[in-house]
Amino acid sequence: MFIAGIVVMSLDGCLTRHAQAGTGFASAADHAFFREALRGFDCSIAGRKTFEAGRESILRARDGSRLQMILTTTPARFAAEARPEHLEFRDQGVSAVARELKDRGRTRCAVVGGGGIYREACALGLLDELWITVEPLAFGEGVRMFDGPVDFAFELLSFEALSPQTLLLKYRRALRP
Amino acid sequence: MFIAGIVVMSLDGCLTRHAQAGTGFASAADHAFFREALRGFDCSIAGRKTFEAGRESILRARDGSRLQMILTTTPARFAAEARPEHLEFRDQGVSAVARELKDRGRTRCAVVGGGGIYREACALGLLDELWITVEPLAFGEGVRMFDGPVDFAFELLSFEALSPQTLLLKYRRALRP
Repeated sequence: MFIAGIVVMSLDGCLTRHAQAGTGFASAADHAFFREALRGFDCSIAGRKTFEAGRESILRARDGSRLQMILTTTPARFAAEARPEHLEFRDQGVSAVARELKDRGRTRCAVVGGGGIYREACALGLLDELWITVEPLAFGEGVRMFDGPVDFAFELLSFEALSPQTLLLKYRRALRP
Repeated sequence: MFIAGIVVMSLDGCLTRHAQAGTGFASAADHAFFREALRGFDCSIAGRKTFEAGRESILRARDGSRLQMILTTTPARFAAEARPEHLEFRDQGVSAVARELKDRGRTRCAVVGGGGIYREACALGLLDELWITVEPLAFGEGVRMFDGPVDFAFELLSFEALSPQTLLLKYRRALRP
């Protein structure tokens, strides 16, 4: 199964504006890219906070063909919103959920945050690619892409402008020599 | 006086690898760009920690034509290293030092960090441009470009590859509507 991390950040590497959950700062160009990019995936993994921050659009999308897996220590809390094969909740790590998705025949998985999920996926070597949208903003404080000390190397695959102001950088994980 | 902030960061917005001072992680492509870029400036401003982390190369360069200003609360500690018109130390803020440099006839100033200096320069509206080198690395923790909650908007001026792995993004400060 191909797994890509998809993330939008400020130019100083903040995934949120200070303590405000969600990606309300993201541009229309990023929204359009993200929506279109997700069409290329048949499943996704997000953390509970990312789910709650994007709840409305996620619930709207839960009847699509993409299986959205939300990682939470309290899946029972979300039983009323769950819909098998579309929106499911798991009290498991990224690795176990990725294995389940693969076993269920899914072939392309988007990891959509937040910082703890990106970190776990990358640390386990699960991320084939990392797609970063860079917005022309700086926040100084906010959620980091990887929420703790890590030491990952990547290879730049491509870079392009999604709009005159918004960049898309694509990397793949590099193995250090 | 034209003032540009010049910064190298990991793809997740860290200016240092965890708590390790300095930019030892920067690529040869960034070093070459930085050296060449500095030739276009007749003065620069750095904080004390940035000076201490880059001490050797700064001391080697102190006989060039660029006037390097180091901001420190204890300039007397560095009296033996100072060399008027080349390397000077000030117990002042970015604004006062920029004014002094302008009054002394300097026309192009590079602000080279760290996070507190970038923040002060940007908050005061002193940065005309921000030049960011992005390395294909992630550290999760480290010095941030702006060391506290800020809310700055920029305009993307250009983006290019310095090497197959290293990007250079140039922004200018945008005034919010």
